Amino acid sequence: MASQPAFHVQMSPTKVTVIGSGNWGSAIARIVGETAAQYSTDFDPAVNMWVHEEIWDGMKLSHVINEQHENPKYLPGKKLPENVVAVTDLIEACKDSDLLVFVVPHQFVSGVCEQLQGHLKDGVLAVSLIKGLMAIHKMGGIRLVSEEIQDILHIDVAVLMGANLAPEVANDNFCEATIGYGGSAETRALLKKLFQTENFRINVVKDAHTVELCGALKNIVACAAGVTDGLGYGDNTKAAVIRLGLMEITKFVEHFYPGSNLETFFESCGIADLITTCYGGRNRKVCEAFVKTGKPLKVVEEELLKGQSAQGPLCAEEVYGMLKHFEMEAKFPLFCAVHKICSGEMKPTDLIGCLRHHPEHRSK
Amino acid sequence: MASQPAFHVQMSPTKVTVIGSGNWGSAIARIVGETAAQYSTDFDPAVNMWVHEEIWDGMKLSHVINEQHENPKYLPGKKLPENVVAVTDLIEACKDSDLLVFVVPHQFVSGVCEQLQGHLKDGVLAVSLIKGLMAIHKMGGIRLVSEEIQDILHIDVAVLMGANLAPEVANDNFCEATIGYGGSAETRALLKKLFQTENFRINVVKDAHTVELCGALKNIVACAAGVTDGLGYGDNTKAAVIRLGLMEITKFVEHFYPGSNLETFFESCGIADLITTCYGGRNRKVCEAFVKTGKPLKVVEEELLKGQSAQGPLCAEEVYGMLKHFEMEAKFPLFCAVHKICSGEMKPTDLIGCLRHHPEHRSK
Repeated sequence: MASQPAFHVQMSPTKVTVIGSGNWGSAIARIVGETAAQYSTDFDPAVNMWVHEEIWDGMKLSHVINEQHENPKYLPGKKLPENVVAVTDLIEACKDSDLLVFVVPHQFVSGVCEQLQGHLKDGVLAVSLIKGLMAIHKMGGIRLVSEEIQDILHIDVAVLMGANLAPEVANDNFCEATIGYGGSAETRALLKKLFQTENFRINVVKDAHTVELCGALKNIVACAAGVTDGLGYGDNTKAAVIRLGLMEITKFVEHFYPGSNLETFFESCGIADLITTCYGGRNRKVCEAFVKTGKPLKVVEEELLKGQSAQGPLCAEEVYGMLKHFEMEAKFPLFCAVHKICSGEMKPTDLIGCLRHHPEHRSK
Repeated sequence: MASQPAFHVQMSPTKVTVIGSGNWGSAIARIVGETAAQYSTDFDPAVNMWVHEEIWDGMKLSHVINEQHENPKYLPGKKLPENVVAVTDLIEACKDSDLLVFVVPHQFVSGVCEQLQGHLKDGVLAVSLIKGLMAIHKMGGIRLVSEEIQDILHIDVAVLMGANLAPEVANDNFCEATIGYGGSAETRALLKKLFQTENFRINVVKDAHTVELCGALKNIVACAAGVTDGLGYGDNTKAAVIRLGLMEITKFVEHFYPGSNLETFFESCGIADLITTCYGGRNRKVCEAFVKTGKPLKVVEEELLKGQSAQGPLCAEEVYGMLKHFEMEAKFPLFCAVHKICSGEMKPTDLIGCLRHHPEHRSK
């Protein structure tokens, strides 16, 4: 990140664009629209929201958003602040902005960045709200979404993660989020101001890679939790699996992205997001059904998620490739077992056997 | 603990007594009976189990245990190893022992210790498996079960806590536990040998007070989790409440029992036990019903727990008294809110308001 031009807080108000207008994009636009209007010396109150145009009920979605101040397709029933303006041209939406909030599905990140190349102001800051990993890295490693944005656009990137499902955020339920940004304290304070409301509480930490990796790796742990649910184990076995999964997350981050702070795992992006994902998330659900029904994972996914995909098995595959490349499988038995179970190379009932002599138990 | 005579591993095999024969006592006797027999150079294979005599099905319970090798009243259907011997006289059961495993309900701890005064060998080690706090300390502080045992018997005390409900342990489901012991590495290794089996995995850490306090304070957090469930909040609000509760646990331990290691909160005694308690435990259940029905807490407790009590409200009362005494209420808004809600001084709906400006959010 040191090689990227750092973002500096401007004297003039910071102009914000939300890139994305799905469920999560619309929910976050409600928040930044509100705070940008509230802190008008810090932010330009007019917040752009890039909308990938589509037709809704015979009308252009962007028109509906700008006239009704609501996104009826992706966040029905929730008003957007009037200062949030839908813009359908990506470059038009971003060219005057100082701060870009990335909230598109992760398969669109590269394309969006490539379109924006050469069209941004100098010293722009990106904030990625995208959970997940890019495709397998050529070097046998994984690739973070923030790294993809940086490599294409050469801009500074912060991340925002945590236990905050869009519907609950949009419902103004109390929840928390973690921002990871390694740059100046002034910028960290500005980010907190932009994203924090009475019901959406923000902590900002410096080790952005830790924050981002928690958001991706938790899905692997949720698959393991789903397998224990599917096998009919009780609460304590599941708690042990979640804990060992968290330990593998911390070890993975420490090894591949050194410089993490143990306290960051106690933030919303860490334990809080892990807990909700392992109890309520779709990866848990898919893996439980996979074990219970014996149907192929793809079939279960289609039946349960209706077109959406479970990130956990994909993430496990990528992480497994990396661990194999570096001959580190023995240190990450849970991550490896999840990949092998999801790919049919291992029986679900063998999960616990893989964890019995976990490195965590050997050391103490 | 430094003022207590330290336990030293003996040349002769260590003689073990389990003080207690309820559900948890019987489950742990199955484990230590097995390991004592397995490691017969380290342990005397004959493990005593103190049984508070009662009549079961017209027979003396101790006789049934010694003849059928099963505790049909408190752990039916699970065989005890034949080397576990029920002894009904407390002093007889303990007088030749080197290692006493305390696993009685916490209201009986003081009485048991007083009976044992003057009847133990020199240099005995206790291991407390008892979760909870003693009654309010005279000095406006709380009092740990391990402190009570130490103060009465002047012996070295270790603790064993974690996400390990007796029925699941007795069922040989995979789970984990944490032993806290500040003494020698040799003794820590001996304790791990005594308690660890293929399905009951042990980590031993040095900061015993942290381990013990996690076991007590988690119940307060579970009450808060139950309140959010009762109010109908979603997964993210609950995750935020659990996380803020954990942060208060860490701050409480750091302040009142300095010397804790942050990593200990990642052990089974920390996050794992907290998670299961906040999702499956009786404190959560009672507080959810308390909020939903509006009935007095005592009534809900009787209806749901049938004679057992929820430790959370009691623990919250004790902790609140301590925080008030030291004028530290502002630093522990969740602990204080739980006490006030359970005692009727605050409406459950005010819980979230107390957490919005949590010190955790102010500092970052």
